[in-house]
Amino acid sequence: MKSALLVIDMQNGFLSPRSPLFIAGAPATVPACARVIERCRDSGVLVVFVTRAYAADGSDVEKPRRAAFLAGGRPLSPGCDEEISAAMPKEFGASEKDMHIVKPRYSAFFNTGLDTRLKELGVGHVILAGTTTPNCIRTSCYDAISLDYDVTVLSDCTSSVNEEIQRSNLADMERAGARIMASAELVLD
Amino acid sequence: MKSALLVIDMQNGFLSPRSPLFIAGAPATVPACARVIERCRDSGVLVVFVTRAYAADGSDVEKPRRAAFLAGGRPLSPGCDEEISAAMPKEFGASEKDMHIVKPRYSAFFNTGLDTRLKELGVGHVILAGTTTPNCIRTSCYDAISLDYDVTVLSDCTSSVNEEIQRSNLADMERAGARIMASAELVLD
Repeated sequence: MKSALLVIDMQNGFLSPRSPLFIAGAPATVPACARVIERCRDSGVLVVFVTRAYAADGSDVEKPRRAAFLAGGRPLSPGCDEEISAAMPKEFGASEKDMHIVKPRYSAFFNTGLDTRLKELGVGHVILAGTTTPNCIRTSCYDAISLDYDVTVLSDCTSSVNEEIQRSNLADMERAGARIMASAELVLD
Repeated sequence: MKSALLVIDMQNGFLSPRSPLFIAGAPATVPACARVIERCRDSGVLVVFVTRAYAADGSDVEKPRRAAFLAGGRPLSPGCDEEISAAMPKEFGASEKDMHIVKPRYSAFFNTGLDTRLKELGVGHVILAGTTTPNCIRTSCYDAISLDYDVTVLSDCTSSVNEEIQRSNLADMERAGARIMASAELVLD
């Protein structure tokens, strides 16, 4: 079965302690994400960068986040400080050879063309990396199961604001039918 | 702001210990659900029953659940035992005056017409009751936030296979912006 790696929301606006959307566990996962991205490219597995971008006026920010966005330097929007911008770590070496999807909400599949693109390419298995585990990883996981994909979540390439939240969410996704594993255990065809 | 109560998956197939899809915490929530349904009707708040129904051959069951469905009496499908059927508790008094939505997957909004129906009626706030908290309640919660609804989750009208899962999921949804409260605290206009 053909696989794709989805790298979700690994952007300065979630990785910088100066951002109101900072995820404490995320910076430590950058090296593991970079390694699995490289391994996927070497094995011919499609790498999809799924990212968030907000309008400078905040009109498209999720309602519960809008106040923090406006008060906190308008992360992930045009004109904000580079340190909290939509840019991704240079270690990922993102290029036009990868697929790029900008999503308006939590799930990589919510109001995006991702499902259509993956099905066109014959992808039946998605591998999830990125942040944050309880929000964008988990909603993408449930949508992927709902759309009949097999799902693997990489425990060392996903992150939460603390370890308890990380553990409980990985356990819930495993009960729902996702495979949970460390990236070193991932076997690529 | 106009509200609607979504009562999700409160059906014999999730409420009976004889079903492979049984949720241990769910039967105890039936009385609280029945009370809040009655209060909503008395206050003119729309009650929406969102339910699951599977084909007898299991062809539309989520892939991770398919083996348990086939081995466990094919719950929630035509011709299965009444005890594990798609029927709801009589205490709810469901009738044609309520809205009824059959959903194919976890979220009440996934590939259903619910969002369109609620927006046509001017509903801006959804109140979530039913089961199971980590799956169908939580995916509905995140989709509702993504679709710009205000969201309230009723802690005593939702349920999980154990209390730890119930607590961690309510806490995650609160962090994402949902209001969590006991049904007795719910103020209806």
